[in-house]
Amino acid sequence: MTAVEVDTLIGKPIRKLDAPDKVAGRTRYVQDIDVPGQIYGKILRAGRVHARIVGIDTSRAEALPGVRAVITGADVPGHRLGVSQDHPALKRDKVRTPRDEIAAVAADTPEIAAAAVNLISVELEDLPPLFDPREARNPGAPVIQEAKPDNVGLEFDYDHGDAAAAEAASDVIVDDVFKLHYVTHACMGVSGVIADYNHATRKLTLHSNTQVPFLHKREFAKILDLDPAAIRIIQPPIGGGFGSKLDIYPFEPIAVFLSMKARRPVKLVFDREEEFVASPTRQPAYVRLRTGATKEGKLTFRTADALLDNGAYTSWGATIPFVMMQTISSLYRVPHCRFHSAAVYTNNPTAGSFRGYGNLQATFAVEQHMDKLADALDMDPLEFRLANAQDPGEVTGQGMQFKSCGFKDCLVLAAERSAYSERRGENVDARNRPGPVKRGIGMASMLHVGGGAKIYPSDGCGTILKIDDFGHVTIMTGASEIGQGSETVIAQLVCEELGLPLSAVTVVNNDTEVTPWDVGVHASRTTFIGGNAAIGAARLAKEKILTAASTTANLLPENMDLLGGCIVRKSDGEVVMPLDKLLRALHFQDKAELVTTSYYYEPPSVHQDKAFKGDVSAAYAWATQVVEVEVDTDTGIVTLLRVSAAHDVGRVLNQLGLEGQIEGGIVMGQGYALTEDLLVSEGWMLNPSFRDYKLVTAPEIPDIDLQFIESMDGEGPHGAKGVGEAPAICMAAAVANAIHNATGVRMYDAPFTPEKVYRALRGENRQPTMRARV
Amino acid sequence: MTAVEVDTLIGKPIRKLDAPDKVAGRTRYVQDIDVPGQIYGKILRAGRVHARIVGIDTSRAEALPGVRAVITGADVPGHRLGVSQDHPALKRDKVRTPRDEIAAVAADTPEIAAAAVNLISVELEDLPPLFDPREARNPGAPVIQEAKPDNVGLEFDYDHGDAAAAEAASDVIVDDVFKLHYVTHACMGVSGVIADYNHATRKLTLHSNTQVPFLHKREFAKILDLDPAAIRIIQPPIGGGFGSKLDIYPFEPIAVFLSMKARRPVKLVFDREEEFVASPTRQPAYVRLRTGATKEGKLTFRTADALLDNGAYTSWGATIPFVMMQTISSLYRVPHCRFHSAAVYTNNPTAGSFRGYGNLQATFAVEQHMDKLADALDMDPLEFRLANAQDPGEVTGQGMQFKSCGFKDCLVLAAERSAYSERRGENVDARNRPGPVKRGIGMASMLHVGGGAKIYPSDGCGTILKIDDFGHVTIMTGASEIGQGSETVIAQLVCEELGLPLSAVTVVNNDTEVTPWDVGVHASRTTFIGGNAAIGAARLAKEKILTAASTTANLLPENMDLLGGCIVRKSDGEVVMPLDKLLRALHFQDKAELVTTSYYYEPPSVHQDKAFKGDVSAAYAWATQVVEVEVDTDTGIVTLLRVSAAHDVGRVLNQLGLEGQIEGGIVMGQGYALTEDLLVSEGWMLNPSFRDYKLVTAPEIPDIDLQFIESMDGEGPHGAKGVGEAPAICMAAAVANAIHNATGVRMYDAPFTPEKVYRALRGENRQPTMRARV
Repeated sequence: MTAVEVDTLIGKPIRKLDAPDKVAGRTRYVQDIDVPGQIYGKILRAGRVHARIVGIDTSRAEALPGVRAVITGADVPGHRLGVSQDHPALKRDKVRTPRDEIAAVAADTPEIAAAAVNLISVELEDLPPLFDPREARNPGAPVIQEAKPDNVGLEFDYDHGDAAAAEAASDVIVDDVFKLHYVTHACMGVSGVIADYNHATRKLTLHSNTQVPFLHKREFAKILDLDPAAIRIIQPPIGGGFGSKLDIYPFEPIAVFLSMKARRPVKLVFDREEEFVASPTRQPAYVRLRTGATKEGKLTFRTADALLDNGAYTSWGATIPFVMMQTISSLYRVPHCRFHSAAVYTNNPTAGSFRGYGNLQATFAVEQHMDKLADALDMDPLEFRLANAQDPGEVTGQGMQFKSCGFKDCLVLAAERSAYSERRGENVDARNRPGPVKRGIGMASMLHVGGGAKIYPSDGCGTILKIDDFGHVTIMTGASEIGQGSETVIAQLVCEELGLPLSAVTVVNNDTEVTPWDVGVHASRTTFIGGNAAIGAARLAKEKILTAASTTANLLPENMDLLGGCIVRKSDGEVVMPLDKLLRALHFQDKAELVTTSYYYEPPSVHQDKAFKGDVSAAYAWATQVVEVEVDTDTGIVTLLRVSAAHDVGRVLNQLGLEGQIEGGIVMGQGYALTEDLLVSEGWMLNPSFRDYKLVTAPEIPDIDLQFIESMDGEGPHGAKGVGEAPAICMAAAVANAIHNATGVRMYDAPFTPEKVYRALRGENRQPTMRARV
Repeated sequence: MTAVEVDTLIGKPIRKLDAPDKVAGRTRYVQDIDVPGQIYGKILRAGRVHARIVGIDTSRAEALPGVRAVITGADVPGHRLGVSQDHPALKRDKVRTPRDEIAAVAADTPEIAAAAVNLISVELEDLPPLFDPREARNPGAPVIQEAKPDNVGLEFDYDHGDAAAAEAASDVIVDDVFKLHYVTHACMGVSGVIADYNHATRKLTLHSNTQVPFLHKREFAKILDLDPAAIRIIQPPIGGGFGSKLDIYPFEPIAVFLSMKARRPVKLVFDREEEFVASPTRQPAYVRLRTGATKEGKLTFRTADALLDNGAYTSWGATIPFVMMQTISSLYRVPHCRFHSAAVYTNNPTAGSFRGYGNLQATFAVEQHMDKLADALDMDPLEFRLANAQDPGEVTGQGMQFKSCGFKDCLVLAAERSAYSERRGENVDARNRPGPVKRGIGMASMLHVGGGAKIYPSDGCGTILKIDDFGHVTIMTGASEIGQGSETVIAQLVCEELGLPLSAVTVVNNDTEVTPWDVGVHASRTTFIGGNAAIGAARLAKEKILTAASTTANLLPENMDLLGGCIVRKSDGEVVMPLDKLLRALHFQDKAELVTTSYYYEPPSVHQDKAFKGDVSAAYAWATQVVEVEVDTDTGIVTLLRVSAAHDVGRVLNQLGLEGQIEGGIVMGQGYALTEDLLVSEGWMLNPSFRDYKLVTAPEIPDIDLQFIESMDGEGPHGAKGVGEAPAICMAAAVANAIHNATGVRMYDAPFTPEKVYRALRGENRQPTMRARV
């Protein structure tokens, strides 16, 4: 017997398990999947901003050979989609945006379906439109949703302390309005679904890219008048989600209705332009923020009012104030706070949820204010932030309990790595030197949930684990892979527990029929929740294995461990027996047994009360990002040179996955700050293509210095916290602060396109205005 | 609250869950499955009976555009397939049958692959052939397998009591040689595989029609030099198995080798002729049987020698003596018994395993002897059988324990339903009446394992069960569906346990990565073993549910039940609460839980000892079938009119499934007796097509009267036993007995084609001969 020496997998750089197939082009996205008997769906859209539907004539489409079904709103149940149930899949009475779905066709080929859609004639009667969300609540404004005559979708009010009184105790107060623009997820994999309704069994199978398959079983059932138990959702590999797939959008029920009518499976896949037009956007917002501080540099209060442009329908995105208010109330110690938000209806594109979920918008305002206050107090912004940053153990006014907290470490480390304070001074000094190119450095920090978010009745995840006779493990987890690497980290956590190499594991995570429940991919929760669930199942397996080995080995289970594919003696690592041998001995005995376990992990977080207070996440994550930019004052072009990011990740699990996740988020934040701008004019998107909508591409990616703070969260898997959304959140604020450092000009209106910067440098940057309610 | 009244599902006629898709053409067999990047494999066969391979030139094939890989025996590991490891996937030195695999091609299209195969030139040098198995052991006979110079593959010897001494105590002895012919499974779905080897991960995914996926993981690993843990077997819906898919045949490893070389997934599907030529057959046999009885009508001894024609390679089929000896030793009380068998090598087609697994051959001999002995004793054959049939509780000379036994009930009921004894006498009386058409009635009975067969170290099956928030159940079972209806009966058993309708269940049973271990589909074991495993998992779920409901309901778990989708009070059926509500309450509480269970069922049977003794199955099944035929003495045509079948099935679970299974088996037995005859001449199949190989078709199916004896086995699921193989077993013997009843002529040589019957009626039926070793 020899001793096994195997290093831990935790913290190692581990290649994504799905990477080889993706790189080799073997991955089958929904586009690549064909089911037998499949036909093709296509949607007819309104092409008008706001109009009454007077009549629809589908007869010519129906007569086209190869057409199997044509449907309009009159043919389908009238249940409405979305969090406010205000969105009919097919519109009956009126349309509210050019992308509105009026009719749909299923046909033998995509070409016939497209031709048939063109044969449908629709008579529409224009209604007065509403484009500016600030006018939505004006008396006499056009009404978008008849059930909401004031055009207000969702409204939130929050407060703690006494903000009004705190104003009086403030030595400095800053008050600004910030404006955030439209961006879209631009997933590389465009949306698509295959709907297969079986009339005989009344079962529905969906190949769907959803991020929340288990919630959608219930949701689809409501919309479609089906039994939720009879809905099976299979997720093909998903070419990007980023929050865009939290809602059910009309194309999915439409595909089902077509399948029901045609009695065939219907595949409906967007082209790129349709993906731009009919996908959600990040919620555009006006944010009025008012913040005070004492001359000693302590925050006194913060009040905020956010006006969100829903577009014509309410998606989950309209609930981003849940997150915005966390940043307003609890990023730094804020003794007094008030927050109001309204998501209003307009005829603009439909906004949805998007990685960061309101935090980019809130942080954009808050972190510019931190700089402005520091300037007003003549303090170093780093020092000002440190003076207000929380320590582990604090409980915020909103009731968030910061059991682990690496905030100050993030601030200090990001500042050190970037020489923030020195450079900042140098840049101010250099502003007046000759030459058009100025250099700036800017800092921003963020707070986000890092241990799930208890919104739904359960925030948990289930895992079933089985080990075969040769030591191969199958992990059936509710946690979906949407490209973020959850499959890999879950495999890693199980292998760590069972002392196995990653090649010994298969993760099954894409079929509601096989995998146990999970609330879905959102709130940066998958590593934390899905990881803990997987560890739980693995520990039960380990217990069973060591108990079985105990008799043979004449050792107590607690004196043994699993390492290197073997059962070993804990004291010295001596091999007791190979794992596969034990598994077979257990299986091939009189009282035969397999090692199959299951575990459900529910985090110890709580639901917020009606006042939005409570410890809604099992852990919280922080980050500080310092960016350096060059501003060409002749052209307004801002070049991002370098990002120094320090993230409190709890613990590094997969070094490579973490780097990929954070680098990707930084680049997404870079796009939000500088280049991505979905132009909307009178309800129409002007640039629905990758030619005109400017994503950041490889050459523009800055140098990125990543630092991970390991705050070792007590509840997280091996101490880890969620980080999925964090990296995108600070960028716009940090870049705005850097532009200010470079030029002395403050940007209130994202993104910082050359034109806007050029105008701002020439004094044409009027601050956005809004009538604030707070 | 109202009381729930729900009838049991047990014994009801339940439509197969997979039937609607099959009927509607929605089922995707391996033929219909395409994986991305797939190319197509084709095999070059020997086309010679016995020959040395002098040279192979593949250069022209390799040069053909579109060819991705060409392989010969020189390119692949030399491990051999099969139970005796005597079968190389690709032959290197010599070929032993015309179907022998010499080379294979993978190409972009099936057409290119076929063209490339034709471009391979092979130089062969003929060797002396061996066709008659009776000559295989002759000195100087051609040697087929060099490692076995005596041409004997597998040999079995069994005995109990003292058969030689018992001869002396016998008043009557009969001694005959019977001959059984070649038939093949003729599965409607021809063989095919998709092999996908990933060099990066060293993992192999097979879409394979195997009946024993878990055993094959290990088997493929040996053949292919792979880690068994890295082999995933996905079974597409299987278009018929019947035992033909217990072995790995060369085309499967060949597809893997092609995939390894071409670095692409390779699909290799047979056409119908190839299916005939390269599939296994039922083992053809010579059976010499010698049986004695006292004048009081008690059996005294039985000795048997079986000579099986392996063909050139040894498949599992060569182990059919395991089953043959059970019938020889234990169908009826046989106080003294001796059995010998040899499976010998020839240049004939390769025989394999086939539904009934030797029992058709053994029963053919034994049940004709029962009639012959009765005649010799001048007893009614029914009375003679009843006098020797076992009762519940008996243990046979071979150690089989008949805990439940409905044998006599089968005999009596089948005889009653057919008016056997009366008709038999009438037919004899009518023999000499004018007219060419004579009528006959014949009886045969059988004994078969009905509770698995402990051959492999475990004979068990695993089940994982999960219930979603809406009461939908997923059963992940190791038990494969090969068309026999196991999916449906397993669903039914779980629904019965959980008080749910069948629509509430999905069975997942086709992916080794997801499903727990099972030994495979053979030995009529799936309902018994897989059913008990499913019940075990369901009972654990029920226990969890009732325990959870207990607090809410203020009732002890044992005072509640699950019925009609509800938790009910046992005493009066009053609804306590709907099941889905309880499931959600359990899930959406602070200590959230899902209902997920797993269970492994291992039957209480034992391995046979070295003398082949022991209670190898947890239960045994009996059947008696009485057939009525018309024999046209002018033409020799035998028409099967009616079958009265009485089966001890333990308990009827799915009435419809049982009827289908037994009717199908009877028709298969009918083909074996009368029409199916795979003609082999000098090693070549003469009729490899459905035009020339005569399957029974609908118009020829007789009236079938089915009677089920419910012997309520103590270990079986709700008392049920396995019945998959039983119905095919008696038919040939019963028909032979009926022909004798009609004409006074005994048939020793199956099948009873018009020519053979015509000749027999004219005294030209010489009994087959063999040199018996017993």
